[in-house]
Amino acid sequence: MNVVVWNENRHEKTNSAVSAIYPTGIHGAIAEFLQEEDIQVKTATLDEKDHGLTDDVLSETDVLVWWGHVAHDEVKDEVVEKVQQRVLDGMGLIVLHSGHFSKVFKKLMGTSCDLKWREAGEKERIWVVDPTHAITEGLGEYIELEQEEMYGEHFDIPTPDELVFVSWFEGGEVFRSGATFKRGRGKIFYFRPGHETYPTYYNKGVQRIIKNAVNWANTSNTPRHVYGNAQALEKITEK
Amino acid sequence: MNVVVWNENRHEKTNSAVSAIYPTGIHGAIAEFLQEEDIQVKTATLDEKDHGLTDDVLSETDVLVWWGHVAHDEVKDEVVEKVQQRVLDGMGLIVLHSGHFSKVFKKLMGTSCDLKWREAGEKERIWVVDPTHAITEGLGEYIELEQEEMYGEHFDIPTPDELVFVSWFEGGEVFRSGATFKRGRGKIFYFRPGHETYPTYYNKGVQRIIKNAVNWANTSNTPRHVYGNAQALEKITEK
Amino acid sequence: MNVVVWNENRHEKTNSAVSAIYPTGIHGAIAEFLQEEDIQVKTATLDEKDHGLTDDVLSETDVLVWWGHVAHDEVKDEVVEKVQQRVLDGMGLIVLHSGHFSKVFKKLMGTSCDLKWREAGEKERIWVVDPTHAITEGLGEYIELEQEEMYGEHFDIPTPDELVFVSWFEGGEVFRSGATFKRGRGKIFYFRPGHETYPTYYNKGVQRIIKNAVNWANTSNTPRHVYGNAQALEKITEK
Amino acid sequence: MNVVVWNENRHEKTNSAVSAIYPTGIHGAIAEFLQEEDIQVKTATLDEKDHGLTDDVLSETDVLVWWGHVAHDEVKDEVVEKVQQRVLDGMGLIVLHSGHFSKVFKKLMGTSCDLKWREAGEKERIWVVDPTHAITEGLGEYIELEQEEMYGEHFDIPTPDELVFVSWFEGGEVFRSGATFKRGRGKIFYFRPGHETYPTYYNKGVQRIIKNAVNWANTSNTPRHVYGNAQALEKITEK
Repeated sequence: MNVVVWNENRHEKTNSAVSAIYPTGIHGAIAEFLQEEDIQVKTATLDEKDHGLTDDVLSETDVLVWWGHVAHDEVKDEVVEKVQQRVLDGMGLIVLHSGHFSKVFKKLMGTSCDLKWREAGEKERIWVVDPTHAITEGLGEYIELEQEEMYGEHFDIPTPDELVFVSWFEGGEVFRSGATFKRGRGKIFYFRPGHETYPTYYNKGVQRIIKNAVNWANTSNTPRHVYGNAQALEKITEK
Repeated sequence: MNVVVWNENRHEKTNSAVSAIYPTGIHGAIAEFLQEEDIQVKTATLDEKDHGLTDDVLSETDVLVWWGHVAHDEVKDEVVEKVQQRVLDGMGLIVLHSGHFSKVFKKLMGTSCDLKWREAGEKERIWVVDPTHAITEGLGEYIELEQEEMYGEHFDIPTPDELVFVSWFEGGEVFRSGATFKRGRGKIFYFRPGHETYPTYYNKGVQRIIKNAVNWANTSNTPRHVYGNAQALEKITEK
Repeated sequence: MNVVVWNENRHEKTNSAVSAIYPTGIHGAIAEFLQEEDIQVKTATLDEKDHGLTDDVLSETDVLVWWGHVAHDEVKDEVVEKVQQRVLDGMGLIVLHSGHFSKVFKKLMGTSCDLKWREAGEKERIWVVDPTHAITEGLGEYIELEQEEMYGEHFDIPTPDELVFVSWFEGGEVFRSGATFKRGRGKIFYFRPGHETYPTYYNKGVQRIIKNAVNWANTSNTPRHVYGNAQALEKITEK
Repeated sequence: MNVVVWNENRHEKTNSAVSAIYPTGIHGAIAEFLQEEDIQVKTATLDEKDHGLTDDVLSETDVLVWWGHVAHDEVKDEVVEKVQQRVLDGMGLIVLHSGHFSKVFKKLMGTSCDLKWREAGEKERIWVVDPTHAITEGLGEYIELEQEEMYGEHFDIPTPDELVFVSWFEGGEVFRSGATFKRGRGKIFYFRPGHETYPTYYNKGVQRIIKNAVNWANTSNTPRHVYGNAQALEKITEK
C-alpha cells in the first residue's frame, strides 16, 4: 500500500512552538508512525511543485492523508479537482482536524463543513460509538487528550455513512469526531483531533486510529462501472 | 408554502414532439398539478434574467423543483452557488430526472452523479422500498410507466440518507430512483423519471410523489446553529 | 391523531418524591402537554387489564408513547408481541428514557439496548446534530437539564436511521440521545431524558421534542405491501 | 479465522433433485469453496446435538454462515439465543437466501423479514450498487444467474447499514439482495440467492461474494464496552 501524507507545513515554519513539537513537521510525525505498519509512506507539502501531488504521485497513491489549516486557499483548484477525481476513482482519503475546511473536503461533501471552535487547552474525551468498526481495533472505550482545541456541533457535513467516534469537551460541547463517507469508488474518513500546538499525533490511541483508518480506506479490485449509453441486456418489446 | 418550478425549457422550444406533450413546458405541467395542493407555485426558466432565480425569488422560496438536461452548462456559476447556499440554509430541493447532471445537484453531492442510460421507450416499474416514508403516501406497491428512458446502476451518488424507490427496467437494469439527502438545514429528494418525450408528468403516481416530496422537503423553524469561535459553556480547568 | 401514553406507573405509587413531582403520574404529565396540540390523548398503565393495551385500543392508536423502568418483566409477552405487530403495521412508537430496556424496544431493535448509567443529579446538555429534522422544530442549538440521570455510550442499539440529538454529561460521558428507527411500516423515536426523580417532562424543550416526535411518527396512508407467493408481472422465458 | 457453515440439511435428504446438485449438502458445497481461502471451515447441521452449535463451537467461531428453509421452527430457542448473544459479542453472521425467515435473523432484525417469492426458474441479475465495498472485490458490474427463485420487494427488514447489491428479476420485481447490518459488536450480511434446486453455490461470482463477506464480517480486537453503573470521569458540581 502506498500512502502519501500531505501537510500545508506552514505553522511549522512560522511558529517555533509548533516546530518544537513537530521538528519534521506534522507530516513527518504522521509518516513516522505509519511506517511502523507494512505501508510505503511518502510526504507532500504545499510549497512543492503541484503541492507535491503530481499526476504520477496521485495515480500511485492508495490512500492520501490530509492536514491543512491557514493556507487552504493557496491549494490550486486544478490539484483539488485531481484529488477529487482520484477519490471517486478509488483512492482513500483521511482528512485530519482543520482539514474540515480544505477545498478537497468541502468539494467532496457539498456542504459548508463549518463548526464551532475554541482554543482553550481543554480536555477532550473521544468515545467509540461503533465497536464493530475496523477503525476501532485495538482501542478501549475511549481515548483522552489532556489538551486540545474544541470543535463543537453543529458540524455541517452530510449524514456520515458511519459514525465511529463522538467527542466530549470540558467546556460543554460534543462533536462527531470520527465519521466515514463513501464517494464514488473511494472511502473517506474524517478524524477531528490534531491542533498544531499540542502533541496529539504522538498519542498512541490517535496513532492507532490513523493506522486503522489508512488500512480501512485502502480498497483493491472493487468493481469499475461503465457509465453512459448502454445496450439493452434483455429484449425490449416494441410498442 | 412557496414553490418554484425551474426548467431549462429548451426541448420545448426546439422539439415539437416535446411541446406537443407539454404545451406550457415541463415547468407548466408540474406547476399545474402542484397548484392542486395548498401551495403557492411559480415557475422560472433558464432564459430569464438570472435564470429567474434572483435573490428575492430565492429568499422567498421554500422548495425548488429542478428540471434540466441539454443546457446544464449555461446555468451561471453564481446562481448555482446561491441555490446551494439557500439549500444549506433550509430551502428544500427536488431534482428531477436529467437534473442528476445539473451543476446544482453535482455541487451538493460531491460526486460525478453519472449513470447508465438508454432511450428505447421501455417499461419502467418503480417499486416502493420504504413504506414508512411520507413521500410514498397514497401510493400502491409500485407505479408503472409504459415508456421511459432507462437510467441504470451504478448511479454515482453518495449513500442516500433514505432510499425510497428502486426501478426495474425492461432492458435488464435497476436504479435507485427515489433517494433523499440532507445538506446543511435543507432536504433534497432526487426522483428519476421524466424524459421529455414521454408524458410522465401526467402520470398520477408521479404527480403524487412530487406533491408528497414538496411537502416533505418544506421545513419550518428548524434550529439555526451558530458557527465559529465559541465561549465555553462550562468552566475549563487551568493546566 | 390518537395517541396513547403508556406508563408502568410504579414509582409514582411507591416513591413520594416521584408522586410529588408527577401527581398524575408521568403519563399524566405527558398527556397534559400533548393535549395542547391537535391530538386525542389517552393514557394506559401496567396494572390495567392487558396493561390498558387491548386489541381495540391498539388498533385505534396512531402513536404510542412508552415509559417503563422497574417493571419491564411484568409486561406480558403477548402484549409485547401485539405492540410489535402494530408498529410493523404502521403505529408510531416513542420510547422514553428507561424504556430502552423495555421488552417492546429490545424486541424491535434485536440488540441488548444496554448502556452506562449513573444517578448523580448532574447536568445534561442535549445538542441538536440534525437541524433538518422535523423533531427539532422550534428548538435552539441545545437544551439543558440542570439535573438528570446519566446514560453513557456505548448504547447497544442498531445504527439509527437518523441521529437527531447527542448529549453531553457533566461527569464526562456522551450519549446518542435522540435516534429514529424504521421497522416495517412504523416509525420509532427513542428519546433519552426523563428520570422519575427530576421534573424533566415539565421542561419546555423536552415537551417540544415529544410533541414534534408524535407528529413525526404519525404516518397515514403509506403503501401496504403484499407478501408471499406472487404471480409474474412480466413474461418469463421457458428454459 | 474459524468459520462454521450451518445448514438445516433437510431438502438434501428428501429431494433427490437437491442431493443430485449438492451431494455433500449445501453446507458441504459452501465449505468446499471457503476452504480455498486461508480459513478453517467446519459444518454443522440441524439434526446434530444442539444443532451442532454447542457453547464450545460457538465460542470458537469467528463467522457463522446460515442456510435454512423448511425447518426454521425446529431450531431450538435456546440455541437461537446463544447465536444472537455471540453475534452481539462480535461473531460475524452471513445469512443466505431463505435464512431471511430463520429465527436467528428475525430476532436480530426485529421485523417480519417477509417478502414476495416465486419459483419459476427465472433469470436474476444482481447489480453492484456500492463499488467501495469489500464484499464486491473481484466482481464486475453484476452477476447473472440463469435460473433462480424470485424474491421481491417489499423486503421487511430494518434500513440496512449498507446496501451492496440490488437484484433485477425477469418477472418484473427488484430486491435488495445484499445488505449489511451491525448488531452489538457483530457484523451481519444478508445475501439473497441460493434456492436449493439450482446450482447457485457453484457460481463463481456467488462464491466470491460469500468469501468476501466472511472476510468482511470477521472482526478482531474491537472495543469491549463496560455497561451498567459507572463512576463519574469528571467532578460533578453539587447542586
